[in-house]
Amino acid sequence: MTTSEVDRDHVQSLERGITLLLAFDAEHPEPTLAELAQLTGFSRPAVRRFLITLERMGYVRSNGSGRWSLTPRVLTIGQHYTESHALIELAQPHLLGLAEQTQESASLSTLDGAEVVYVARVPVRRIMSINVSVGTRVPAHATSMGRVLLAWAPDELVDEVLLRYPPQAITTNTVTDVGALRAALAEVRRQGWSTVSEELETGLLSASAPVRDRSGAVVAALASSTSTGRSTVEQLEREVVPLLVETADRLSADLGGTARAS
Amino acid sequence: MTTSEVDRDHVQSLERGITLLLAFDAEHPEPTLAELAQLTGFSRPAVRRFLITLERMGYVRSNGSGRWSLTPRVLTIGQHYTESHALIELAQPHLLGLAEQTQESASLSTLDGAEVVYVARVPVRRIMSINVSVGTRVPAHATSMGRVLLAWAPDELVDEVLLRYPPQAITTNTVTDVGALRAALAEVRRQGWSTVSEELETGLLSASAPVRDRSGAVVAALASSTSTGRSTVEQLEREVVPLLVETADRLSADLGGTARAS
Repeated sequence: MTTSEVDRDHVQSLERGITLLLAFDAEHPEPTLAELAQLTGFSRPAVRRFLITLERMGYVRSNGSGRWSLTPRVLTIGQHYTESHALIELAQPHLLGLAEQTQESASLSTLDGAEVVYVARVPVRRIMSINVSVGTRVPAHATSMGRVLLAWAPDELVDEVLLRYPPQAITTNTVTDVGALRAALAEVRRQGWSTVSEELETGLLSASAPVRDRSGAVVAALASSTSTGRSTVEQLEREVVPLLVETADRLSADLGGTARAS
Repeated sequence: MTTSEVDRDHVQSLERGITLLLAFDAEHPEPTLAELAQLTGFSRPAVRRFLITLERMGYVRSNGSGRWSLTPRVLTIGQHYTESHALIELAQPHLLGLAEQTQESASLSTLDGAEVVYVARVPVRRIMSINVSVGTRVPAHATSMGRVLLAWAPDELVDEVLLRYPPQAITTNTVTDVGALRAALAEVRRQGWSTVSEELETGLLSASAPVRDRSGAVVAALASSTSTGRSTVEQLEREVVPLLVETADRLSADLGGTARAS
């Protein structure tokens, strides 16, 4: 066995093991070994080996009758991200205050490639068709959070996101023209916040403002979301945006950041 | 290469890769390769291979100057647990209502061996010295959540937890005598809720009530926590416990469970 074979095996089994963990989802909360093999494309003997390893580590359990499920121990993996990023704990009282004042869900998110990841959230009511929670990913181009994060991102990152992952239409409102998106980002940067109306989902409105670290770099977007049945874009801009910007600035100050630096 | 060698390699590299991910924490948010080797006990070449694999999968990134950090993508792993357990989404409005009414943090947790794992939480203020978030683990025996979960757990599970992991003293108040703990569990089962005072941390008080699924099995504990500076155990029992039990019963009803079944 040469070193390169060992390397390849190591890489592959780590990647495959995590892929197997991710095969458990809302559509497949309790898959069988055969279903997992089908979902991942791995052989049944490989799936069996990964399940045995993951069961021994406490991440999956057999429910009897051949079905498997994730254990709450998988949450610990993400918790290591949360506890190693002070921003998330500092954000909690601000998210709660914002949710209480607006009576709408408040979220904090960061950019991961062409997607936005929710890193903290106070849910007030369900607006979106998907179940949004910490770790949920949505396309950056179609959300106010993504627009804020891209507005202050380095040019090369924006180029990569817009060129490598051409913006897809999700609703009939989604802006997909790269020139129009770049203009929208410039506008967000100028005004200091973003609102997006029904570009990710029909009936969904959201507003976001940037959160800065002590160097002034935008490290997260603070967002408030509502539905067209409860608010108009104009109301959102008049009533929620000032509160949102003020809250994001206070969180930035907690991080030692310079509010409103450009 | 025999099958057993392949098996062993696969198991080991998956286990080691996840162990490496977990080496990033509050104390080591941006470790170097050398620090990761020291934290995990793995060789530097092994750490390098895992880092390269995890970087390619998007779970870690190099920050330049030899330091590495977790990306928000690790949250997605836990999100698959959250989205495959309807309980967590159903709990959100109840947690928020409880937090608003009590002006204290509200939590939902489940049992994982001898520990309790927070699976959902609305933080109001920080009471504990540790940063509690979804995925945080605390010893079951010293918490009101753990007492509730053990009170209705199968006897063989309680035996395993108490005998395999003998209860450790965490504060001078922690009940560590197995007979006394069993009596406390019987009392929780009789009264339908639990309060625990300063057994996990000096100054920390908490109350918990059981959440049941449609079969009547206790699947989670709903908790409210406060500090000795803001409440006494008597106040907690008089003012918070009735609200907590009512909220847990409503969540059980949402799950199709039978509230107050024993």
